[in-house]
Amino acid sequence: MNARHRVVILGGGFGGLYAARRLRRAPLDVTVLDRRNFHLFQPLLYQVATSGLSPGDIVSPLRWILKRQRNTRVWLADATGIDATRKYVLLADGTVPYDTLIVATGARHHYFGRKDWEDHAPGLKTLEDATEIRRRILSAFETAERETDPASQQDWLSFVVVGGGPTGVELAGALAELARDTLKDDFRAIDPKTAQITLLEGTDRVLPTYPAPLSAKCARSLTRLGVTVRTNTLVTDMTEAFVTLRSGDATETLRCRTVLWAAGVKASPIGLAVAQATGAELDKVGRLVVAPDLTLPNHPEIFVIGDLANFSHQTGQPLPGVAPVAMSQGRYVAKLIRMRLAGKTAFSPYRYFNKGELATIGRATAVANFGRLKFSGYPAWLLWLFVHLMYLVEFQNRVLVFVQWAWSYFTRGRGTRIIAHDK
Amino acid sequence: MNARHRVVILGGGFGGLYAARRLRRAPLDVTVLDRRNFHLFQPLLYQVATSGLSPGDIVSPLRWILKRQRNTRVWLADATGIDATRKYVLLADGTVPYDTLIVATGARHHYFGRKDWEDHAPGLKTLEDATEIRRRILSAFETAERETDPASQQDWLSFVVVGGGPTGVELAGALAELARDTLKDDFRAIDPKTAQITLLEGTDRVLPTYPAPLSAKCARSLTRLGVTVRTNTLVTDMTEAFVTLRSGDATETLRCRTVLWAAGVKASPIGLAVAQATGAELDKVGRLVVAPDLTLPNHPEIFVIGDLANFSHQTGQPLPGVAPVAMSQGRYVAKLIRMRLAGKTAFSPYRYFNKGELATIGRATAVANFGRLKFSGYPAWLLWLFVHLMYLVEFQNRVLVFVQWAWSYFTRGRGTRIIAHDK
Repeated sequence: MNARHRVVILGGGFGGLYAARRLRRAPLDVTVLDRRNFHLFQPLLYQVATSGLSPGDIVSPLRWILKRQRNTRVWLADATGIDATRKYVLLADGTVPYDTLIVATGARHHYFGRKDWEDHAPGLKTLEDATEIRRRILSAFETAERETDPASQQDWLSFVVVGGGPTGVELAGALAELARDTLKDDFRAIDPKTAQITLLEGTDRVLPTYPAPLSAKCARSLTRLGVTVRTNTLVTDMTEAFVTLRSGDATETLRCRTVLWAAGVKASPIGLAVAQATGAELDKVGRLVVAPDLTLPNHPEIFVIGDLANFSHQTGQPLPGVAPVAMSQGRYVAKLIRMRLAGKTAFSPYRYFNKGELATIGRATAVANFGRLKFSGYPAWLLWLFVHLMYLVEFQNRVLVFVQWAWSYFTRGRGTRIIAHDK
Repeated sequence: MNARHRVVILGGGFGGLYAARRLRRAPLDVTVLDRRNFHLFQPLLYQVATSGLSPGDIVSPLRWILKRQRNTRVWLADATGIDATRKYVLLADGTVPYDTLIVATGARHHYFGRKDWEDHAPGLKTLEDATEIRRRILSAFETAERETDPASQQDWLSFVVVGGGPTGVELAGALAELARDTLKDDFRAIDPKTAQITLLEGTDRVLPTYPAPLSAKCARSLTRLGVTVRTNTLVTDMTEAFVTLRSGDATETLRCRTVLWAAGVKASPIGLAVAQATGAELDKVGRLVVAPDLTLPNHPEIFVIGDLANFSHQTGQPLPGVAPVAMSQGRYVAKLIRMRLAGKTAFSPYRYFNKGELATIGRATAVANFGRLKFSGYPAWLLWLFVHLMYLVEFQNRVLVFVQWAWSYFTRGRGTRIIAHDK
């Protein structure tokens, strides 16, 4: 390495990768550190979990994305913390020095302190989470087919999705389509259409961050697909055979063999290490509270972006942990670094311009919220498809996903129904 | 179940599945038992191991293939043996009665008694084998990129493939293309083109079952791709850091971090259980020696087909363990069962008509052996492509593989470069 300014980016998700791409022409040495060798297109992870797409369809090797960017190297490494004084990232097996650091390591699930629930109810954040959920869903149908006791059979055909945000809605919708359409003629002893899919939401409506009319439309679409939507309902306990619920003062037990978790997220553990090294403040879900320019107090050389950052200077509330926020923060930080490099110190604080939000419920059904413009149904679904394909084609060059989708759409088939074995 | 004749098929590979399909119109109850929920297109497994295809591209759910076949059910079950007297298949968790049994459980690798080599040198039989090999290959390049000692770097860039049969040839060729073309611009500290790929073969030529001129062509093509081909060379020992070789009287040590095993196969353990239950004879690699009609002696109701069967009545040698043999045996057995059902007892003994064999070496290179007609290079590769696509399209409806191949062919890219994490 020469004596150029060294930018180290922790994490190759949306935030880290967009920052890296915007630094491609800057006279800098950029290092992207990630534990995985690929960028994961998380918004489509639920499709892998429900056999619609292959893992390979929603990832791109980081090296491949950045191969023509000669000022950037990719290192596969497990970062454990930082030395903010000497400006080193600490790895499990070494150190990497930085002049500017961008921390973009994202978030994991959060079980509200019930770590034992993690085994019963896998969440959906990594590729392995998705294939584990796929394994559980498909295995449940297989076990039901071989079960001779009708009550146990029904237990295996009961699925509960905890959390009515976009991920929960997408999972429940895709699961209903899997049971109703894809698996229709596959079994002899059971009818997959009798599968009971329940979506639980703690607040009074699904998609609570969307306008109320869209929540209502979403709930209606889910019901039409055969999903039982239960709002104002909290999970108070779970075992491998049932889930205990509380609605108001009433408590109830739901027999069910498969529970999927889409309820809470917590910032990645690196946040704590960074807070300890810098004295920065953590919020209650482990996010680092950042300044208006996304740096940490007293550490103008450390930026925190994406799901790991608590940026509340715009609305008084932290921005949501979604891909567009991470991308836009990545771009902002890259611009700031380039300006500093050019000797400009004036800066405008970070602003998130919300272009709108989209959630898909199933085949040809989605809801779209673009401020005053709200719509749902087929047009929203087409837009959802278009936005996601545009991203994939532009950024990851994944034409195949389109073919796979067209295929599934017309055949209602799902090709990647693999029950993976544990090694 | 009613009182119809019950046919149980152990294994949903080529043999079992072709038998099941040919029984689709027979007034029988057919049960296909498999430990996995999918049929695996094993001839393309090496493409998954070298990131060319996704696991989902080369599997089809057994239920999906057999969904319209109303006389057939699929059970996901782990068969442990049989009770040949009472005619039960024994499962890990129950029993399944049969009137006629078809055993088609295939083969696994064989380490010539050196079980400890299994950890160092994974073989290529299952989907998990393929993703493990992919993980090791890609991780080796990643580790080399971070290694600062040039000697260790070169160790990580050394790959040894043991066994010069079709699988070894295909793996070595694909690995060379991965290093030379796909990864070309991906790294900063290493040049993937300097990777050393060595193919070891114990006999005096690669593809020993092919005519000698094709073996020579294959060796030349591999050399052109940058593979070092070493014949008359045996592995005598291996550790995680090196492989010890013997060529004639000379012994030598090759430093190398990644060893892939394509040398020996052994019949699946169910063969032993069946032999013990029936008194049938096992050959030295664990295959069941079958009668001219593929049944076991004194057990006309038990057929053994595919890689698990030793059928030597045609040439005096066992037929090779390849997909076309298994398919043709599956068809033969199904026909025999239908004839028996119709009250016909006369039968012609099984005969394998070898339509030819094909092995691919790399992009646009293959060898083809069709008796008097032998050819190689681009025409052989086109034929290889055509044959594999025909099978996939006809049987598994996998148009996507074609798209993926077209994509890789023109871009030399490989999209599924995933280093999977252990759970």
